[in-house]
Amino acid sequence: MPSDSTLPAVAAFSSLGGQRVWSLMVSLFGDLAQGEGDAIDGPVLSTIMGALDVRPEASRVALHRLRNDGWLQSHKVGRISQHSLTAQGRAESAAASPRIYAAPPDLLEPWQMVMTEENGRETDAALRAAGFIPALPRAYVGPVGKAPEGCLALRGETPPDWLRRAVEPAELESEYDALLVALTTTENELARVRHMDAVDVAVLRCLIVHNWRRLALKHPALPGGVIRPKWSGYQCHLLVDQMLRRYPQPALQDLAATSAAG
Amino acid sequence: MPSDSTLPAVAAFSSLGGQRVWSLMVSLFGDLAQGEGDAIDGPVLSTIMGALDVRPEASRVALHRLRNDGWLQSHKVGRISQHSLTAQGRAESAAASPRIYAAPPDLLEPWQMVMTEENGRETDAALRAAGFIPALPRAYVGPVGKAPEGCLALRGETPPDWLRRAVEPAELESEYDALLVALTTTENELARVRHMDAVDVAVLRCLIVHNWRRLALKHPALPGGVIRPKWSGYQCHLLVDQMLRRYPQPALQDLAATSAAG
Repeated sequence: MPSDSTLPAVAAFSSLGGQRVWSLMVSLFGDLAQGEGDAIDGPVLSTIMGALDVRPEASRVALHRLRNDGWLQSHKVGRISQHSLTAQGRAESAAASPRIYAAPPDLLEPWQMVMTEENGRETDAALRAAGFIPALPRAYVGPVGKAPEGCLALRGETPPDWLRRAVEPAELESEYDALLVALTTTENELARVRHMDAVDVAVLRCLIVHNWRRLALKHPALPGGVIRPKWSGYQCHLLVDQMLRRYPQPALQDLAATSAAG
Repeated sequence: MPSDSTLPAVAAFSSLGGQRVWSLMVSLFGDLAQGEGDAIDGPVLSTIMGALDVRPEASRVALHRLRNDGWLQSHKVGRISQHSLTAQGRAESAAASPRIYAAPPDLLEPWQMVMTEENGRETDAALRAAGFIPALPRAYVGPVGKAPEGCLALRGETPPDWLRRAVEPAELESEYDALLVALTTTENELARVRHMDAVDVAVLRCLIVHNWRRLALKHPALPGGVIRPKWSGYQCHLLVDQMLRRYPQPALQDLAATSAAG
């Protein structure tokens, strides 16, 4: 069950939806045990999942699914199970990490506008795959440096508000707004908390990383130079970065010790 | 009738169409007598129009029309008529002259891309009025320096071929091609001509200025930096500029003397 320290955070994030247990577990392993050889002991995992308000039965089902999917593996060591990412799970976690853990972009970061000859699907797909964001018909906003052959690439200048809004993922607007409320609430509540043990920190980080990556990985990163400072997605990024730095990843052995003492 | 020196030029340009006599006369006065107090004597005008292969009756009708339109005025001085631009005719000639007589643009001339928030008619009209050329949906190419409020203005870079073609006036393509043939033919024929008197020069200039302005004034000037060097419109501009500089405007008194001697 949630501890006194993390109860408000668990409550704040629970309303956001999308808390599928297997997905939460992917976030947890990616955050705590992405290194080669890292493993989480069964009792530690149970304690954390319990603190995240997940029933033991639901955790077992999720573990089973992730093992079947080739994401996690479990080994018996003496009387306890140790769970770890497979090579595939580790590779996929590593691929997503740069984006999830990126520092918030500099709002003066250069960007470029890339304009295409045609409205072709292939060009559109290639540009989106390269991280470009459609902004106007046949015109995409993206990071500087990689302009596809045959396109017109123009260096970005301070953009008007309508362009900043045009590149925001409109379909995630209400979700980013809700995440910002949860993050702000959590940050305020944390100011009252005297002590966070290793499990508390693991739980808090899992909630933050999980709910952040659910949104951030659904759209390309916006170059800082086109970000509207009041955009919820950017405000979330600032808070996520701030809190993850304030509460660094606990070491796995500290987690084991805390969990055993709890 | 055309002189031996200008006959090939008259023939080369005659196939281009659009040689309405009143319009040809507008070009002539704009080229020869745009200064305040400038006037063309009746006999000189008759000689030039004859050399342009215009029948006397057609010249008289055109003169009448231009007087009625407030473009030209005629005064009797002794036994001859003197024809001159009215203040209005002079003002309108002066307004068109910078574009007609502009040197060909530097192909490295800076340009900008201006992008609009909406597809609105008002914005479109304002941008076109300011000399901007629609290049993509909601994106216009224009000279640097004047970007309308609320638009995104990006500095131009070396453009791909498709953008250069996109800003060319497609509807004038065959007309510019034909003009280029006429100008090239004329330039080649002129190489064989030993002597051009003042009337010959006036006739040649009138043909060049008239047929050039008919096309050039129908579309906004392309910033040099987006011009496709092989574009007929640009090749015409180079030849027009070259020939007008090689055959400068004759003085009105030289014209009178040549005409009287002819």
